[in-house]
Amino acid sequence: MEDFVRKTLLFDFYGELLTEHQKSIYQEIVFDDFSISEIAREHGISRQSVHDMRKRCEKMLTDYEERLHLVERFLTIKDHVTKIRDLSEMKDAGSARTPEETMKRIGEIADVILEEL
Amino acid sequence: MEDFVRKTLLFDFYGELLTEHQKSIYQEIVFDDFSISEIAREHGISRQSVHDMRKRCEKMLTDYEERLHLVERFLTIKDHVTKIRDLSEMKDAGSARTPEETMKRIGEIADVILEEL
Repeated sequence: MEDFVRKTLLFDFYGELLTEHQKSIYQEIVFDDFSISEIAREHGISRQSVHDMRKRCEKMLTDYEERLHLVERFLTIKDHVTKIRDLSEMKDAGSARTPEETMKRIGEIADVILEEL
Repeated sequence: MEDFVRKTLLFDFYGELLTEHQKSIYQEIVFDDFSISEIAREHGISRQSVHDMRKRCEKMLTDYEERLHLVERFLTIKDHVTKIRDLSEMKDAGSARTPEETMKRIGEIADVILEEL
């Protein structure tokens, strides 16, 4: 997965477990694209502190995912649901399924998702 | 939602954020149905400690959900996927949809899920 997408997902899922201070600095660096110097000046802390904070937040978010695997679970579900959506539009390339067969296949994928939930 | 189901979901999602000690005691009380006296004896701690630990774990798990809402997100997805599964089996009571109409409806629900993911 692209690094930026991974960071966005981790922050979306676990960002609320950071402190407000950590969240705002991490957001400014990673998503708002401020420079380390700008953030250091704005918050009245050293550039090293900004750098450390970024590393620390990244480690926290990664650690949460290593324990909980919730981003991973969501992504698996997303793949399955995308497949259902494509099947519902008959985009299943090369297949000559009847609508009835397609519905059966959709039901099977839905069952797989429900087992994983 | 039934209290036991709620506790099971919270523990399933966030249990790994408890310490091993907390996890094992919480599991014994809530899921393995041991008595507080039995657990106190087994772990060599007071009955009050077991009671406090249970309360503390419950609060931690509830707090995680209040911040992250991931159980809630999963349950919403589960409802949608159940609806897709039922539609795929033509269980949509009272409807006289054609297979094509049903597939269109399935595609719409899949889109709603994908927007939420």
